[in-house]
Amino acid sequence: MKINGTPYRTIWPTADNAAVEIIDQTQLPHIFTTLRLDTMRDAERAIRDMQVRGAPLIGVTGAYGVALSMRHHASDAALKATCDMLLAARPTAVNLRWGVEKMRALLAPLPANERATAAWIEAARIADEDVAINASIGQHGGEIIRALYQKKNATVNILTHCNAGWLATVDWGTALAPIYTAFDAGIPLHVWVDETRPRNQGASLTAWELGGHGVPHTVIADNTGGHLMQHGMVDMAIVGCDRVTARGDVCNKIGTYLKALAAFDNGVPFYVALPTPTIDWTLQDGVKEIPIEERAAIEVTHISGLCDDGQVRTVQLTPSGSHAANYGFDVTPARLVTGLITERGVVRASADAMRVLK
Amino acid sequence: MKINGTPYRTIWPTADNAAVEIIDQTQLPHIFTTLRLDTMRDAERAIRDMQVRGAPLIGVTGAYGVALSMRHHASDAALKATCDMLLAARPTAVNLRWGVEKMRALLAPLPANERATAAWIEAARIADEDVAINASIGQHGGEIIRALYQKKNATVNILTHCNAGWLATVDWGTALAPIYTAFDAGIPLHVWVDETRPRNQGASLTAWELGGHGVPHTVIADNTGGHLMQHGMVDMAIVGCDRVTARGDVCNKIGTYLKALAAFDNGVPFYVALPTPTIDWTLQDGVKEIPIEERAAIEVTHISGLCDDGQVRTVQLTPSGSHAANYGFDVTPARLVTGLITERGVVRASADAMRVLK
Repeated sequence: MKINGTPYRTIWPTADNAAVEIIDQTQLPHIFTTLRLDTMRDAERAIRDMQVRGAPLIGVTGAYGVALSMRHHASDAALKATCDMLLAARPTAVNLRWGVEKMRALLAPLPANERATAAWIEAARIADEDVAINASIGQHGGEIIRALYQKKNATVNILTHCNAGWLATVDWGTALAPIYTAFDAGIPLHVWVDETRPRNQGASLTAWELGGHGVPHTVIADNTGGHLMQHGMVDMAIVGCDRVTARGDVCNKIGTYLKALAAFDNGVPFYVALPTPTIDWTLQDGVKEIPIEERAAIEVTHISGLCDDGQVRTVQLTPSGSHAANYGFDVTPARLVTGLITERGVVRASADAMRVLK
Repeated sequence: MKINGTPYRTIWPTADNAAVEIIDQTQLPHIFTTLRLDTMRDAERAIRDMQVRGAPLIGVTGAYGVALSMRHHASDAALKATCDMLLAARPTAVNLRWGVEKMRALLAPLPANERATAAWIEAARIADEDVAINASIGQHGGEIIRALYQKKNATVNILTHCNAGWLATVDWGTALAPIYTAFDAGIPLHVWVDETRPRNQGASLTAWELGGHGVPHTVIADNTGGHLMQHGMVDMAIVGCDRVTARGDVCNKIGTYLKALAAFDNGVPFYVALPTPTIDWTLQDGVKEIPIEERAAIEVTHISGLCDDGQVRTVQLTPSGSHAANYGFDVTPARLVTGLITERGVVRASADAMRVLK
């Protein structure tokens, strides 16, 4: 997508194919800088320090990390050490494992002297595949927005939660892909951006990327969506997800369930955008079966932002004696979900309807 | 209630009855200081600068402002000028008008030389009346908590939103009065405190006052309550309110509606605590009839907190080009409310049941 008129991806090879560049997402939304990753160590650090974030982007960065390493050492031992080190950067990241293991599976059977070239091609292919999947989600979801516009014949208001935008992928994003697609097609739209406490991915990343691409948007406190829906100010909601069960229960950023309840209560369509590999066919009842990560309390008690003096500072919000709890995700039951927007089309969130995606 | 073992009210006469003292609420939760109000001007400033906040407390501060003024100038002209100036401190505050007009009605017929003494007695009476009403809400609501405890025989988990605690009143609070009453009676309980973006009255004021009184509590992002309710971690919710319609629709801090939806979806009792004058008998459909205040966007885009260096600083959360919207309240339909806890007892949120309060 564009940053003030210039098209970007979140990760791209340098012109001479000697290295890759990324956007340093830890500095957003206040400072836009890019970083050059010359070595596997650079890629490992970018993953560990969350300079790249979002499951698909982490996976692609891992793949490029393997490719950068093969340039210098392509022995079996080096391949194993590279993969182990990259996987250790974020041990629980499923897509990181997927990206790295895909590289290992391709490279292991090859002679060492062919590995560097093959690895570079494969990493680029994985990146392009992510872009193609998201572009397809954008096409399918964009049609829903177009239909709403044709019915309403006025600006379509879309609410989103957290960041499932192009910054979390290589390009397009998942939840934001339909929005970019419709916007680029000239459909008048406006996005309500949940700030998404406690990590504020909406207020920082989603607002920043929509602004950069020129999409009209308004940041709101997470408390606000219900009121807006009661007053006809939301035409649809689109969110991303971490995992979807075989019957369509959706695990996504904490607070998604509350917005889905409000959408249901007010007859507002509530869509979830995802690449089909996000479906975990082994799970049925998301509320019972999906363990919810508890994160550090400091994400609730403290927050960072830009001070008057141009410095990014962290401030404490709570009294010193008060504890905080930080559940990272919640589960939205399938009964509240209007549809799943995938790269293979839009389907209802039910075991029967989802079978075509299996 | 207590602050680290010492009982306090939010406003109290000095020992020599020469002035009143307040807690400077603009400094909470990071700094606890009290301020002495010697003159009507001091009271007017405390109201305007929100050193006192919460409808009942603002009303009582206005009454004391009139009383302080009558000490120096008790003519008809002085009484009029005093009332006008105090009302102008927060023109939309209904309780401020109520407190000041109550004083005016009492004092106007009296000879000037009797006004100072009568005013002081009346202001103290208004303060005591607020305490008595809230203590009664505490008794009625405390019984609900006791019943839950007797059924569960384990710690009762209560979720609250915003600050409807003793800091918003003279003592006890409304939503927190039942919690203090039950806690003081030895019932084991724990409070989930919604941080309540964008002004964070939960994370700052509710957490601070519960901590000061020794009540176990945990601060959570506003997004979290639905997840907790899905997992049986909330036994009841109690919130305060700004206004209740004749059929029981509840206007309260933005986000209350989302918690009420989640409570309903999970069979968690959802109570609203209020003094009966909060009921607006002229209104029926809260969503349609109650206009919702839009506040400054800077409350969403910026936030204040304690820096490492001990300074309270404001930081910007959103990218510079992004707009924000700030709706202050929302309306929870009566169908989602289990009961209204008033000083005259607990009633269902319906036109029929509420008639006994008329």
